Amino acid sequence: MSLCEQYFPDEPKAPVVVSTENPKTKAATASLDKVFDARAASFVADYSKSVGNYICDVDGNYYLDVYSQISSIPLGYNNPELIKVAKSEKMIRAIVDRPSLGTYPGKDTEEIVSEILKVAPKGQDKLWSALSGADANELAFKAVFFWYQSKKRGYKTNFSESEITSVMKNQAPGSPELAILSFERAFHGRLFATGSTTCSKPIHKLDLPSFKWPKAEFPSYKYPREKYVEENAAEDKRCLAIVDTLFKTWHCPIAGLLVEPIQSEGGDNHASAEFFQGLRDLTLKHGALLIMDEVQTGVGATGVMWAHEHFNISPPADLVTFSKKFQSAGYFFHDPELVPNFAYRQFNTWCGDPARMILGGAIGAEILKHDLATKAQKVGGYLFSKLEKLQEKYPKYMKDLRGKGRATFIAWSLEDSATRNKFLVDMKKAGVNIGGCAEDSIRLRPTLLFEEKHADVLLERIEHVLSSY
Amino acid sequence: MSLCEQYFPDEPKAPVVVSTENPKTKAATASLDKVFDARAASFVADYSKSVGNYICDVDGNYYLDVYSQISSIPLGYNNPELIKVAKSEKMIRAIVDRPSLGTYPGKDTEEIVSEILKVAPKGQDKLWSALSGADANELAFKAVFFWYQSKKRGYKTNFSESEITSVMKNQAPGSPELAILSFERAFHGRLFATGSTTCSKPIHKLDLPSFKWPKAEFPSYKYPREKYVEENAAEDKRCLAIVDTLFKTWHCPIAGLLVEPIQSEGGDNHASAEFFQGLRDLTLKHGALLIMDEVQTGVGATGVMWAHEHFNISPPADLVTFSKKFQSAGYFFHDPELVPNFAYRQFNTWCGDPARMILGGAIGAEILKHDLATKAQKVGGYLFSKLEKLQEKYPKYMKDLRGKGRATFIAWSLEDSATRNKFLVDMKKAGVNIGGCAEDSIRLRPTLLFEEKHADVLLERIEHVLSSY
Repeated sequence: MSLCEQYFPDEPKAPVVVSTENPKTKAATASLDKVFDARAASFVADYSKSVGNYICDVDGNYYLDVYSQISSIPLGYNNPELIKVAKSEKMIRAIVDRPSLGTYPGKDTEEIVSEILKVAPKGQDKLWSALSGADANELAFKAVFFWYQSKKRGYKTNFSESEITSVMKNQAPGSPELAILSFERAFHGRLFATGSTTCSKPIHKLDLPSFKWPKAEFPSYKYPREKYVEENAAEDKRCLAIVDTLFKTWHCPIAGLLVEPIQSEGGDNHASAEFFQGLRDLTLKHGALLIMDEVQTGVGATGVMWAHEHFNISPPADLVTFSKKFQSAGYFFHDPELVPNFAYRQFNTWCGDPARMILGGAIGAEILKHDLATKAQKVGGYLFSKLEKLQEKYPKYMKDLRGKGRATFIAWSLEDSATRNKFLVDMKKAGVNIGGCAEDSIRLRPTLLFEEKHADVLLERIEHVLSSY
Repeated sequence: MSLCEQYFPDEPKAPVVVSTENPKTKAATASLDKVFDARAASFVADYSKSVGNYICDVDGNYYLDVYSQISSIPLGYNNPELIKVAKSEKMIRAIVDRPSLGTYPGKDTEEIVSEILKVAPKGQDKLWSALSGADANELAFKAVFFWYQSKKRGYKTNFSESEITSVMKNQAPGSPELAILSFERAFHGRLFATGSTTCSKPIHKLDLPSFKWPKAEFPSYKYPREKYVEENAAEDKRCLAIVDTLFKTWHCPIAGLLVEPIQSEGGDNHASAEFFQGLRDLTLKHGALLIMDEVQTGVGATGVMWAHEHFNISPPADLVTFSKKFQSAGYFFHDPELVPNFAYRQFNTWCGDPARMILGGAIGAEILKHDLATKAQKVGGYLFSKLEKLQEKYPKYMKDLRGKGRATFIAWSLEDSATRNKFLVDMKKAGVNIGGCAEDSIRLRPTLLFEEKHADVLLERIEHVLSSY
C-alpha cells in the first residue's frame, strides 16, 4: 500500500465532475464578495470533504489538485499526521497563548526552532522566523542592510550621532541608499521592498511607489537543454556579465543579490549550477550577500529539500528564505554576523507564529521519515517522460517542456495567453485544478504525496483536453 | 464570582517570586540564542503553567502580567473559551488545510470574515486580512495608492501603455512618486514602507533604506489635561497647521495620512477629538485618505472596541488597521472603491491566516458577550484614581500620568531612561511584568480580564518599589 493510500484510504480514484456550471460556487462567491474581495476566486472549496490530492468544491466536484493552493499544500488535504499535530497540547497553546518570541520565548521555543533546523539547507544552522514569503524576504533584506553597514563601521562600533539624528528624518547617513539586485521575471512578494525586487507582471506593481533597485537579466534557455548546451552556456555568461556590470556601475552600493533557484511565478525559468556559482562568485567579488528565495521551490518539490542544493554552491548562500509548503516562514543562515550587532534591530511584536512553526517542523519530519523528496524525484521522472511523449504529439500546446530532473516541478508553454487560459479552464472542466505562470505557461505543483496513479490521471486528462483542440 | 474567577479558578492571588536570579531562564536563553536571536528575551516563559493575568517563567516565578506580550494577549493565558475554539474542527482544518483565501476560499470563509466584522468600527463593513500589524499597514498603503491613482485616471479606466512598461523598471508613471504622511514619535511597524512611517526610535530604522515621506508633529500635551485646556487646544492648532502646510508643500502628492489614536510605542501620546476631526477635515480638503492605526489601541483596551471611536470622527476613517490583541490582522473599510479596480492587485498567496481570523472572531464575540470594554473602563477608572494618589506621593517617579477615561490604557513618565529601566527591573523582582514606551515612560497593557483585585496587586507593588527609592 502506498503512503498516500495509507494516509487517505478515502481519496477518490479519479476526479468527479458533477457540475461545470458551479452554481453554488457562483452564489457563495457573490455573497463573500460583499465583505471580502473574492474576484480572484477560482471556486469555493469544501475543505471538510477535500482529501489527499483531491480538492472538493461546494458544488460537489472533486478536482485532482496539481496547484495545491499556489504551491503551498505539502502533504495533501486533511493529512492525518498533521491533524494529530493540530490537536496537540503544544499547538493549542501556541494558538491561544501566542508569545512575543523575541521577548518572551516559551520553554518549547528552542525545540520548535530545532525541528525546523533539522531540514535546513546544507551549511545553514540558524533561523529567523517570519509570517509569509514576502515578510521572510523583507526581513532578509534587513539582515543584509544591517550587515553591510556594520561591515563598514565595524561590527561592534556604535552608531554615530549624525546617523542617529538623520535616520529620524529618513535621511542618510542613518538611512543610507543601498540596493538589492534582483532579476527580470523574478517574483519575491508584493510588499513595498519585495515589490521593488519583483519583476514578473505589471499587475503586481502598478501604482505603487518603489525603491529604484537594479534588475539583471535571468538566462532564457533553449529547450530541450541537452540539445542546446553551448547556446545556454553562452546565455549564462551573457547574464553574469550584466550582473557584474550592475555591481560596478549602479549609482549606490548593492548590498545583496536575491534570486530564485527556479523563477516560478515568472515562468519556471531554469538556470544552470554554473550560473548560480557565478552569482555566488560575483557577490563575493563585490562584497554583497547572496539570498536564495526558496519560497516556492523549497520543501521537496524539486526532488531535494531545497532546490538550490542541486547547484552545490560554494560557499553556501548567505540567507535562504522559505514559506508556502513549509506553512511557516523565515530565513536560514549561518554567519553569526548576520545576527545584527545590537538587540531589537531584527525584531517585531511576534517574531513569527509558533503555531505555523510547529506545523513546519512536523512537515519537515514527515518528508525526512518517508523520504518524500526522493519519491517526488521518481514520480516526477515518470511524469516528465510521459509529458515528453505528449509534447511530441501536441507540440503546438506543449512548448519548452521544462523541469527535467527537478521532480514534479514541471512546466511548459502554450502559444499565447489566451490559449493557456483556455487550457486552464478546460482542465478544470475535466476535473483537474492546475495553475499558470508567466503569461503563456502551465506550472505543475502537486503535493509530495502525488504518486504515479495521480500522474496517470493527470496525463489522461491533458490528452483528453488537447485531443479536442 | 467574577468572570476572571470563572475562567481561571487556579489563577494565583498574588505574584510568586521564587528566584530573582533566574538561573533556568539564563540557561534556556543562552541555549536558544545559538539557533534564534534571544538577546531581547526578558525571560523564558512556561506557557503551560501561565494562567489568566499571570505569566509563569521556567524558574517557577509567577508575574502579574500588565504587558501581555507587548499588548497582544486579550483574554488571559490559557483562556478556556479560546482553548475550545483551538480544538474545534474548523480551527483544525484552518491549520492543516491552509487555503489561499483569495483564490480558493472555503465555504466557511464568509462566516469567519463576518464574525470579525461584528466588531468592526462604526462605519466599516468590509475587511481585508493580513498577517501582522506592519503587514496590515502596508496593505492599507497599497489600497490608498491604488485608490489615489484610480481617482486620477478614472476607476474603470485601464492602465496606459507607458504605465505598464515603466512599472517594470520601477519608474514613473507606472510606479509613481506618492507619499504617506505620518507623525513624529509614531510607530507603525518595521518593514520598509511602514518603517518609513515609523518615527519613534532610531534602533527601529538605522541602516535601512527608506521612502522619503513627510512627518508632521503630533501634539505634546501638558498634564493633567483638564488644567491645560487652552494650551493644549493651541497645541492642536499648531500641529494641524503643520499638517496642512505639508499637504500643500510636499514635493509629491500625499495620498494618505496614517495616525494612531494614541501614539503607543512612542510614549502614549494623546490628542483630542478636535485634533483628529481636524486631520479628517484636512484629508478631505487635500483629497487624501485617513488610515487609523489601531494595532495597539484597538480591541477594548481603551474602554471602547476601537480607540478612535472616542473621537466620533465624521465621516469615518477610510481604513482602520488592526492586529495584536485581535490575534489576526488586516484592515476594515467601507468605500467600495477601496477595493482595487482589478482583481489580483491586493493579493498574495494566503491573503490572511484563517486560523488567526477564527481566533479574532472568537475574541470579539467574548468581548461583546461580557461587555469587556465597559468593564475595562470601570477597572481603568479605579486604577487611574489610585495612580493619581500615588503620583501625589511620588511625583518624581510618576510624571504626566495619562490615559484618564481611556480604561486601562494608562502611562506615565519617569525622570529619564535609566530611572525608567531600573523601575522595570525592580517591578519584575517584585513580581510584575511591565513594559516601557518612549525612552522614559511606563505603559500599562493588561488583559481585558484585569480586575480590581489585580489593580490592587499592581498598585501595592508599585508603591513597594517606589517607597524604596
